[in-house]
Amino acid sequence: MTQLRRGPWTILSERLGYENPWMRVREFDVLRPDGQPGLYGVMEPRQAAIGVLPVYDNGDTVLVGQHRFALDAWSWELPEGGGPEGVAPLESAKRELEEETGLRAAHWRPLSEFDVSNSITSERAYSFIAWGLSEGTPEREGTEADMQMRRLPLREALEMAISGTIRDGFSMIMLMAAVEQARRGALDPGLSRSILSGLDEA
Amino acid sequence: MTQLRRGPWTILSERLGYENPWMRVREFDVLRPDGQPGLYGVMEPRQAAIGVLPVYDNGDTVLVGQHRFALDAWSWELPEGGGPEGVAPLESAKRELEEETGLRAAHWRPLSEFDVSNSITSERAYSFIAWGLSEGTPEREGTEADMQMRRLPLREALEMAISGTIRDGFSMIMLMAAVEQARRGALDPGLSRSILSGLDEA
Repeated sequence: MTQLRRGPWTILSERLGYENPWMRVREFDVLRPDGQPGLYGVMEPRQAAIGVLPVYDNGDTVLVGQHRFALDAWSWELPEGGGPEGVAPLESAKRELEEETGLRAAHWRPLSEFDVSNSITSERAYSFIAWGLSEGTPEREGTEADMQMRRLPLREALEMAISGTIRDGFSMIMLMAAVEQARRGALDPGLSRSILSGLDEA
Repeated sequence: MTQLRRGPWTILSERLGYENPWMRVREFDVLRPDGQPGLYGVMEPRQAAIGVLPVYDNGDTVLVGQHRFALDAWSWELPEGGGPEGVAPLESAKRELEEETGLRAAHWRPLSEFDVSNSITSERAYSFIAWGLSEGTPEREGTEADMQMRRLPLREALEMAISGTIRDGFSMIMLMAAVEQARRGALDPGLSRSILSGLDEA
């Protein structure tokens, strides 16, 4: 019998704990880093988390709102969705932005890539900035029939993230990372001006 | 038979999909917002996510590193752990900081509260800034036997978060939110000076 290693962890055996079309839970019998036996359950989403920060030339962005079933609460967020394995995250981002908001973008660049909750899930997130926007008609999924859309200054969306009005961690990361990158001069100058519009003037 | 509502969603029935000491998955038969039948699985951690940003007077912070089993990868992070139901998040934060780093703090304040991954989990996160630090001896759990600790300027930790060297979303939020709040003058002036130390001078 082969024992698998993950760093200082040893996997003795594993089984499928739960499965549906969007996630599975794998349960492992392990030896922990201190050598003692233990149990580890990992929730593995089948899709990556994909997010988009749309930026209008005048410094506006777009939030979508929907009632989130998992928390039984309304949530204002940036456009987000799932990216199937085998599809480049950028392609999923383009599809998701257009489906949820009708927006298409002339320019795209990577924004931030991170692990969503690394103690009990393997979920990974990929995000992008989209600019040079043109408007169209959303084509939402049946689970998104209650979705609302709101165009507002990015500095107001950032304020919502800082004050706790936006409670979605992924949206908070996208807004704060874009502003931090713009301040460091890491983005296209015109895009930086749009992102920082009205932010550091007062 | 009672039908439960969650906003535009109707719950027809539910069952336990999976359970271990740290999480459970509940599976629901639902009517979606568009009225069509569907299935919804929600991973519900038994504990809230708790995080701490320790700030030394000279502008240093502290990272802890460990091999994360769920992603089979080394991860540098701020001190984080689980907060049991019925215990105030601040109490869990104090315990977690001391266990992982040996640090105690004279001053604490809330930093950020958010939903970790709202499409398929109910996980909530609470974070705090800790300053006025005094050093002691860590008392780590057996799952943390490989943990390392590193004191470094907060501006370098922020750079690691922006550049992708820190991949943990929770740590990214804490670092960026603290800097953003300090820039807005929302924190104690001495604390703000420590947080922004070396950041906006160049």
